[in-house]
Parts: sequence; structure tokens; C-alpha cells
Amino acid sequence: MRAPPSDLPQITADILERLRERRPRVHCITNAVAQNFTANVLLAAGAVPSMTIAPKEVATFVRRADALLVNLGTFDTERQKASVKAIGAAGAARIPWVLDPVFIDRSKPRAAFARTLIGKAPRAVRLNAAEFAALAGGKHEAEALARYAAAKNTVIGLTGETDFVLDAKRLAKISNGHPLMAKVTAMGCAGSALVAACLAVEQDAWHATAAALIAMGVAGEIAAGRARGPGSFAVEIVDALYGLDRATLVANARVN
Amino acid sequence: MRAPPSDLPQITADILERLRERRPRVHCITNAVAQNFTANVLLAAGAVPSMTIAPKEVATFVRRADALLVNLGTFDTERQKASVKAIGAAGAARIPWVLDPVFIDRSKPRAAFARTLIGKAPRAVRLNAAEFAALAGGKHEAEALARYAAAKNTVIGLTGETDFVLDAKRLAKISNGHPLMAKVTAMGCAGSALVAACLAVEQDAWHATAAALIAMGVAGEIAAGRARGPGSFAVEIVDALYGLDRATLVANARVN
Amino acid sequence: MRAPPSDLPQITADILERLRERRPRVHCITNAVAQNFTANVLLAAGAVPSMTIAPKEVATFVRRADALLVNLGTFDTERQKASVKAIGAAGAARIPWVLDPVFIDRSKPRAAFARTLIGKAPRAVRLNAAEFAALAGGKHEAEALARYAAAKNTVIGLTGETDFVLDAKRLAKISNGHPLMAKVTAMGCAGSALVAACLAVEQDAWHATAAALIAMGVAGEIAAGRARGPGSFAVEIVDALYGLDRATLVANARVN
Repeated sequence: MRAPPSDLPQITADILERLRERRPRVHCITNAVAQNFTANVLLAAGAVPSMTIAPKEVATFVRRADALLVNLGTFDTERQKASVKAIGAAGAARIPWVLDPVFIDRSKPRAAFARTLIGKAPRAVRLNAAEFAALAGGKHEAEALARYAAAKNTVIGLTGETDFVLDAKRLAKISNGHPLMAKVTAMGCAGSALVAACLAVEQDAWHATAAALIAMGVAGEIAAGRARGPGSFAVEIVDALYGLDRATLVANARVN
Repeated sequence: MRAPPSDLPQITADILERLRERRPRVHCITNAVAQNFTANVLLAAGAVPSMTIAPKEVATFVRRADALLVNLGTFDTERQKASVKAIGAAGAARIPWVLDPVFIDRSKPRAAFARTLIGKAPRAVRLNAAEFAALAGGKHEAEALARYAAAKNTVIGLTGETDFVLDAKRLAKISNGHPLMAKVTAMGCAGSALVAACLAVEQDAWHATAAALIAMGVAGEIAAGRARGPGSFAVEIVDALYGLDRATLVANARVN
Repeated sequence: MRAPPSDLPQITADILERLRERRPRVHCITNAVAQNFTANVLLAAGAVPSMTIAPKEVATFVRRADALLVNLGTFDTERQKASVKAIGAAGAARIPWVLDPVFIDRSKPRAAFARTLIGKAPRAVRLNAAEFAALAGGKHEAEALARYAAAKNTVIGLTGETDFVLDAKRLAKISNGHPLMAKVTAMGCAGSALVAACLAVEQDAWHATAAALIAMGVAGEIAAGRARGPGSFAVEIVDALYGLDRATLVANARVN
């Protein structure tokens, strides 16, 4: 498996620049807990979010968007139907989409639904170790992750103390981030939305996924330096993402 | 078309004072992305929000409220039904209501629904230029806006770099505000809710609409002076609205 | 009626310590306005929130949780069904649950539903004076509260300028808190969620309820000292709860 190119931080900075210039539309089907924070993270990074799940219009919104996020954080019937419609529209229009199978380790029907969606060609899957185990039935060692990514022809972004970003052949380990990120609800959901935004401006899904997670991690470290606790951290990470410049990004990215 | 009275900032300060004294109840049918921020903006200004969309009780909540907001930000069946019930109850009880036709430029069924609701006598419509084009089919020049306001017997509050507030005969141009307002989700939605709150304490709907947009704009400028990015801006604008006093308002309002 | 033990602040500190150590899972059926803030308050205190209301999985989430919150803030059909399923699962698995009958004073069907749920043995009910009147049909004097708590075999946590925590025999009056707490939406909802979290680590429901309200009140006072208005207050109270240590808690708790 190839190590990441030494210029991944520069590539990340390029992608963030394109986000701010092009202002891609990102349609998000996500849970009610995460909607507001996710929208604000996308806006801070330069993207334009929309969030409708209404059956009459979700396909139209997706067709006019540049990327799609499907987050399973609330597994209600309405969102399930919206997800299927949205993914269908994205497939037909060749719009990249990201799956975030939140909490599938806690709910078998949700895990089964996630496995169905994996068959519909997400460009990336952002999840944690417990969710990967529920999805793929195995351990989250680099080899297992790469095999799964190869089998499903997708990119896996597995977040934790170290983030792993893999496709069939490439692996990046990102050591950025801060423990306070786990103390703010919807932080992972917002990270997945940022993966979708990056896919809107970057063809290489492995680069896009790594860029989003590097940006979140570096912003998280900056935010932690300014925060007193998780309340101010949630505010500061949005500001940090908004203000993140190339020099800071390159100086602080820890990727190998 | 008449220019605004030179005492519009003073009138705005009067309205904000009445909001804090009378604490009107504002019922909001709004999208899930906007609910929390909208409720906090209303509370900061002195109003008391409620947000239920349940069919069994929405009419009761509206009848006991002093104003109603109908925001189309998520066009789900449940909210559509709640909107129709709520507007019916508001009409019967002569409670003023505001329409915010979010994103109708992106969805034809949503635009059609908005056009139906316009027939049900909203006291004000708060929207942006793209939404006005989708609603009225034309340009958003002052004359077109005034004609539309006259035809529908309502007040138009069109927000953008400059905000335009029009009824059939009067026009106010408000130059307050800050670009960070477009970087926080639900800022427009919260502004519309504040229009509803002002309608609860001010008979003249043109005054009420202008007052809400002046207050948001001035608070936005104060917030921008204290914020590092859109995360802290969203916090600071709530604080600024809460603390906005007559002298600051009058000194900073830019209306012509 | 017995006065509270003089070591209630120490007991509160013990409970908060156990929350941080054990990280109990708290499943919340709560309104969309409150979900994000509630989740962040729980995370700040050390608990792990989940929020699904989907019929297929809500019982499973509850069975794997350590406590349950049922908040009636949005009385939609989906949440009503989820509440009944969740409470059934909690009862079968002997998981403690809390009822927060939000705004039942504004809606008769909601009040009727709350009265049904009271029959299903909540370990605690957190509400305000108007909600208590709608629930119990009487005044909220200490004797009436105690009689109601005895009749329903539950603990009543009635919040207001002074908070009252009662079971059949014990009464604690908590004088902590700050007026800004009423200026942030979902503050009461989040307090109820914290009651549920405390029930997960404390057998004595009266201790657990008092602990949650003391912690919220002391955190609110710390936050008020750092905040400029309700926007920053909402951020600071999360930080304050996260950082609350035994010495500060004991020095600031005002209970009699």
C-alpha cells in the first residue's frame, strides 16, 4: 500500500481554496441533531448547504447540487425514502455522494440499510471503528479497511484518535484533531459533510476525503487552543475552519 | 413612492422596547435547521417562541400566539399541513403572520405552494432576490416590488446587500448588515421570525418589517466587530440583539 | 417533610464524578428545537446521548441505554408513538426514565398524553409551575407537590426562580441559577436530560434530580459571570458544566 504523497497538505490547501472560490452546493440528508451545525460548517468552508428531505423535491435539489451527503443518524421512514431518492438522482446525474452510517453498531435494521446503500456506489464512507465493524463484520486494521474499500470501490475515511483514509491502494494516517471533538455532537456528521463538499471540487475521492479530515483535524487543534470547553470549542472550530489559510494548514497537518 | 420618515430608527427603538415589555408569543412553523437559532433570536429580542407542527395542537398554539411565522425551509407534508391549519387559525383570530418562502427558486412545487399562501393575506413576506423572482416572475427593482406589494396587499422585505422594505406607497432602503450574516445558516429565517415578533407589537406592517431588518442589520454590525468568524458571529449577534439600546440603534441605523 | 441533608452538594459532586467515569448512555426522545443543545449538555457532563425516534429501532436503543428522557416539546404522532415504545422498553428493562411535559399548559391533548405517561412510572418529572398546574390541576405549593409525588410514586423537579425537588417525604429548595437561563431555548429540556443522566448513575431518584438541577444552576451562575448575553451564555453554560469541579460546586450550591 502506498504512503500518501508528501504534498497532501498542499493538495488539501488547494481543495479548500477551490471550495471558497466555487461555492459548491452540497445537499445533506442528515439527522435533526446535526443539521444546524453541519450547515454552519459547510458555510464556513465555503460551500452552500441545502437540507430538504421532502419527497416532492429532494431529487430536484440533488440534481442541482454538486455533492450529496447521506447520514443515517436518524433512521426514520421519511429519511430512508429521501435517501433512496436522493442517491438515485445522484447516480443518474453523476453527482458524488458520501455515506455516513452513524450508530449502525447500535441498530441492526440501520446496519442492513447501510449495507444496501454501500451497493449504490458512494464515493466515500466516513465512519468510526465500531461502525466499520458493524458494516464490514471485521476488524479495522489497515488491510481489512483496504480490502473493503477495494471490494466496494470506494474510499474509507475511518476517524478516531488517528484517522485512516484508504482506497484499494493508498493509505493516509492523519494524526490531527483533539479529544474535544468527541465532546461536541454532530462533529463526525459535519466532517462527513465536508468530505462531500471536497468531492464537489476534487475528482480524486481519496484526496477529497483526506483533505476534509485534515482540515477538520487542524481546525480542531486551533479551536482547542482557544476554547475553555466543548461549548466554546464548537464555536471556535467553525471560526477556525473559516479562517484556515494555506500556511497554517501546511505547518500543522500531520499525515503519514 | 415616499421616502421613509426620518424617525424610522426611533420608531424601531420604540418597537424593540415594546417587544421587551410585552413579551409577545410568536408561533413558528419553520425548518429543523433553523428552529434552535430562530428560538434564541426571538428570546433575545424579548419574544416567546413556540414551534410545534403537530396537527392536533398547532391551531391552538396559533390562537394563543400574538404572531405567526410560516417558513418553507423544509417542504415536508407535515409542515405543509401545519402551515395551512396555522394560517387558517391566524386569519380567523386576526393574528398577523409572515411568510418566508425559503429556496422557492430551487423547487417548483415549493414555489407553487408559496403562491397559494400569498393569497392568504400575510402581513409581510421576507425573502431574497432569487426567491422574489421565483414568486413574482420578475425583476426585483423597486417598482416591481411595490407593484407586487400593492397587488397582494402586503409588505415586502427583500434582503440582500441593501434591504428593501416596501408596501404600495412607501420604500425604505436599509444599508445595515454584514457579509458574515450570509455565512450563518438560518440568519434570514431568524430575521423573518423577528418580523413576526415586531408585527405582534406594531400595527403598521411596513414599520414592523423595517424595524426587524434594521435591528438585525445593526446587531450584525456589532457582532461582526466582536467576531472572529461565522461561529462566533452567530453567538455575538444574539448577544447584540439582546443588548441593543436606543442610542446605539439610532446612531447606527442607515436608512434612506 | 425532611429538609435536605447538609451534604447534598457533596452527593451532587459524587454523582457528577460518576457521570464522567461511567459515561452512561442516555436516550432522548425530545423536540427538534432542543436536540442539539441537549446532546451537547449531556456530552459536556460526561454522558453519551442518542436521539432516534424511528419505530424500528427506538426500543433497541432504549434497551442498550442507561436512562431515557421523554420530552413532549413537539407533540407529533411519530414522537408520541416513539415515546410509548421507548417507555415500554424502559419498563421491561428497568431503565430509569424522566418525563418533561413541555408546554402542556398550552395544549389539552398534550396534557392528556402527559397524564397517561405519568401512569407508566417515570422516576422523575421535570417541569415548571404552569406545567405542574396543567398536570395536577392544582397549585404548586410544597404540600401539593409532595402529595402529587407521593400519589404517583415519583420525584418532582419543579424549576423556576427557586427549584423544588420533592418526593413523598423530602424537599430540597435550590436557589442557584440565573435569569439568562430563561432566555436560551431548550435550557429546561437540557436540564431534564441531565436528570436522566444522573438517574443512570444514582439509585436515589431524589438525589439524582436534585444533583442535576444544582449542577445546572451552579453552571448557569458561572456562565452568567462570563457571558455578554444569551448567545454567549448558551456557550458558556456548556463549558461551565464540562469544567465543574467539586470545590466550585460545593462552594456555590445554595440548597435548603
